[in-house]
Amino acid sequence: MTTGNEPGRRTARDLRPDEIANFLERHHWGILATSLHDQPYAVPVVYGWDGQSLYFASAPGRKAEILRVNPRVCFTIPDVHDASKGWTSVVVTGRIEWVEDVAGKLAAFNILRKQVPGSPRLSDAARLARASVARILVETVTGRAVGS
Amino acid sequence: MTTGNEPGRRTARDLRPDEIANFLERHHWGILATSLHDQPYAVPVVYGWDGQSLYFASAPGRKAEILRVNPRVCFTIPDVHDASKGWTSVVVTGRIEWVEDVAGKLAAFNILRKQVPGSPRLSDAARLARASVARILVETVTGRAVGS
Repeated sequence: MTTGNEPGRRTARDLRPDEIANFLERHHWGILATSLHDQPYAVPVVYGWDGQSLYFASAPGRKAEILRVNPRVCFTIPDVHDASKGWTSVVVTGRIEWVEDVAGKLAAFNILRKQVPGSPRLSDAARLARASVARILVETVTGRAVGS
Repeated sequence: MTTGNEPGRRTARDLRPDEIANFLERHHWGILATSLHDQPYAVPVVYGWDGQSLYFASAPGRKAEILRVNPRVCFTIPDVHDASKGWTSVVVTGRIEWVEDVAGKLAAFNILRKQVPGSPRLSDAARLARASVARILVETVTGRAVGS
């Protein structure tokens, strides 16, 4: 958590690649930030991670509309128990591409289902065909742990 | 959490203004999304809320550099206990302005200190003068509760 240049400033360290991979495996939601004409817009999404890309399903709405115009995203996964004591976060930047084929969607939903506890099984082919599924192509990934 | 058009889709409702105000009072951190040339960049920050604006302290770094160029932000406060069951979030859009005067910084730190449990007291005038503090001028605020 950025408490800036206050006294009592926290020590911060960058996560190692293996810690980042472990973090992405253990979590299942984050904040997806999009931007249109440099106005950011960010909402929570659940994700699946296959070790290379992140996947999410997108309902119709402002986020999906923006992503059709500007596919660039930042995906921030916070782990904050007590912000005054410390926190860990992973920040991914990249761009999304839509998964258009049904086999790709099914694979993405299986990745999501594996990651997200209690998520429903998607077996209806017609629903699957209508679903909007995106893959985040990761360009940069950083992780930070801050303790007091 | 956006689980999109999966089966088992959740019911969602917009929060009322009083629920949003209560939510902003009860929480103390969120994800601040910025954007430079339509590439979003978003990190966790602790905030203080005085009923009208949000305040945060900013350490030097990429976020602060972007905000000097583009003050437009989206601030997303998530409350997710179990993403498969439901979640609540408040999304604020607006722009930041830097608090430059020492009296304004002191007031902002007092708001932060009131909101964030265990945050340190800032009494050193020289440190206060050096601190970077920003106010988010709220343009839109929406809240959403999603349950399974």
